[in-house]
Amino acid sequence: MTSWLASAQDSPFGLHNLPYGVFTAPDQPGRRRIGVAVGDFVLDAGAAARAAGEPSVLLDADSLGPLLAAGRPAWTAVRASLTAWLGDESYRAAISPCLLPRGEVELHLPFEVADYVDFYASEHHATNLGKIFRPGSEPLTPNWKHLPIGYHGRAGTVVVSGTPVVRPQGQRKAPSEALPSFGPSRRLDIEAEVGFVVGAGSELGKPVPLADFREHVFGVLLLNDWSARDIQAWEYVPLGPFLGKSFATSVSPWVVPLDALEAARVTPPTRDVEPLPYLDDREGEAWGLDIAMEVRLNGHPVSHPPFAAMYWTAAQQLAHMTANGASLRPGDLFASGTVSGPEVETRGALIELTWNGENPVKLPDGTTRTFLEDGDEVTITATAPGPDGTVIGFGEVTGRIVP
Amino acid sequence: MTSWLASAQDSPFGLHNLPYGVFTAPDQPGRRRIGVAVGDFVLDAGAAARAAGEPSVLLDADSLGPLLAAGRPAWTAVRASLTAWLGDESYRAAISPCLLPRGEVELHLPFEVADYVDFYASEHHATNLGKIFRPGSEPLTPNWKHLPIGYHGRAGTVVVSGTPVVRPQGQRKAPSEALPSFGPSRRLDIEAEVGFVVGAGSELGKPVPLADFREHVFGVLLLNDWSARDIQAWEYVPLGPFLGKSFATSVSPWVVPLDALEAARVTPPTRDVEPLPYLDDREGEAWGLDIAMEVRLNGHPVSHPPFAAMYWTAAQQLAHMTANGASLRPGDLFASGTVSGPEVETRGALIELTWNGENPVKLPDGTTRTFLEDGDEVTITATAPGPDGTVIGFGEVTGRIVP
Repeated sequence: MTSWLASAQDSPFGLHNLPYGVFTAPDQPGRRRIGVAVGDFVLDAGAAARAAGEPSVLLDADSLGPLLAAGRPAWTAVRASLTAWLGDESYRAAISPCLLPRGEVELHLPFEVADYVDFYASEHHATNLGKIFRPGSEPLTPNWKHLPIGYHGRAGTVVVSGTPVVRPQGQRKAPSEALPSFGPSRRLDIEAEVGFVVGAGSELGKPVPLADFREHVFGVLLLNDWSARDIQAWEYVPLGPFLGKSFATSVSPWVVPLDALEAARVTPPTRDVEPLPYLDDREGEAWGLDIAMEVRLNGHPVSHPPFAAMYWTAAQQLAHMTANGASLRPGDLFASGTVSGPEVETRGALIELTWNGENPVKLPDGTTRTFLEDGDEVTITATAPGPDGTVIGFGEVTGRIVP
Repeated sequence: MTSWLASAQDSPFGLHNLPYGVFTAPDQPGRRRIGVAVGDFVLDAGAAARAAGEPSVLLDADSLGPLLAAGRPAWTAVRASLTAWLGDESYRAAISPCLLPRGEVELHLPFEVADYVDFYASEHHATNLGKIFRPGSEPLTPNWKHLPIGYHGRAGTVVVSGTPVVRPQGQRKAPSEALPSFGPSRRLDIEAEVGFVVGAGSELGKPVPLADFREHVFGVLLLNDWSARDIQAWEYVPLGPFLGKSFATSVSPWVVPLDALEAARVTPPTRDVEPLPYLDDREGEAWGLDIAMEVRLNGHPVSHPPFAAMYWTAAQQLAHMTANGASLRPGDLFASGTVSGPEVETRGALIELTWNGENPVKLPDGTTRTFLEDGDEVTITATAPGPDGTVIGFGEVTGRIVP
């Protein structure tokens, strides 16, 4: 099926994608509405439902919350309706007035984040950071290939793309210094990640097996887990990262439905350690995803992280996260951890790209970077294969450092 | 001032306390209401406000959320009203019908937990766990006396006292084993803690200084941070505790207002490392609190942790948690970490009390415990000095282990 909307043809926001967000229109600045990105436009989803004669409380909302909580059958039904409204010529007259030029709307955090968990699923990234943070030790800890290592982050500081990132202050102590000092981070970094949005919750005490991934995960977005490496290095033993990460986590405004990513599914890398049964995805549906990412620093591409190279998949992460009976809530967000591939130019964090500052990144304006400077802007974009040779776009997550 | 309510005299829930909770009455099981514990009763706060001719949207709510968000001036005003209604004889006729016997109501989680942070503020506990988890190393990590170490926990699995705790499953690997196995935790433990409830939020990018503690913290509760030590020991390097803690965190149903604890304030222990200025509470108001806790296992007292011995105070924790610009939201909950004193019988976790299982706890029924068995019930209670020789009660947090 193709859309009657010309700009949706050959667009990364074509009929095969239809990602969800929350927007305000310029003439109604206080009124948040669910939008669906299509071609160069945003569809006002609640207005479209009414125009189509199928009013929907899930779409006529100021957040994706109700739609997330409604579960897989509702997600499938809503996606079918959107596809019909934008694909079937007979809806053109009714639906056209519900389209707003995408450049004119303001985009917001599309849902209230319940719990935020960050994983550490790239073998290349974990190996690189182990070498940098714990020189002289085995870079991968003994548990790494047995379980997807993760930790809880701060849900309240997840912000939408475009929100300025204030350089954090905190305690830093270089190995050469006798005592820590307090001040602005001198080693401010990015982590290019993919985030997974939980829709349907689960009951306390009941693990969610690998096979139920699709019942609970609504969609996918891009995420920049800003990291103050100096604060992190001093604080993280023994209970993990805290203030080095909690000052801001930026997400892209469009949540790509999991259903749009069927054609992007790939076999994950071969695991060289036998997974325990609850993590064993060798039979059944594995959830490797061929998402090609790009990281730009002040407009200049500095890395192309390949999500398909991740050792642990999101389905394994979800099964692990709930294996102890921990419940899920609508709006839970879990992220992959930094996406890094085997080559230097595919590493998703500056600390790896510059090897702890030893090999600065060169920018076209003649300057170099080890870590981020005030005024720097980082943008992460990504695409994945869609059905029939189409491309699924994720849009972008961007943020500028302010003092 | 004394109350006209006889059972409020000499009660840990006297007029000087007035903790807040959320309850349902037996005749209206679906209707959650804000309650205030007083003597042997619960005051239906919203009904009382109406009966007193001062209807309150903050009290006529199904959660403490609106009251938390309203901030310090509203908290002071509401507390003054409650004190008048329950203390002034002229209100007796109007208010009496709003009292329900406390034994007859069901108590609920009193607010939706936004972010949950757990600290590690007892020097005795951190030293004991360092010796047990990292034998041969310095027990305290080099950062410990420079900053209050903390990490984010799972907000969605904070449950109210009385909720059964399902023994978690997970990966465990004893040092003697070559590979991890999956199954029920064999080393299920407690952590007796004090939790602090954030009311008024703060703006992203703006730290909350020590002096503003009272503007943001609404009240205090008891918390049991259930811990699966075998799962934790295998997973926690390098990113900290995750599934070893995230299966359940129990809290007491009554939030004791910070205002009720003025008489409990004590000078914190002398710190033997000079604090950085943002953590220096030697001038101004320090927030040591003389809360005497008791831990009972199947009804038998096994420990008496002294909160006054904590190295880091809640005000320091709040200042640290926001030093990087991280914002607060109403409903944020941060906990002290296990409260352990210097003596064996004041340790707040079984792993310390039994020294990693070497010295089992003896119970009056002739059995012993190293870690928790199915069917075991753990109850934590606490009191603090109130004004004029009164006692402030915290009630209890209890939970029973189910297979």
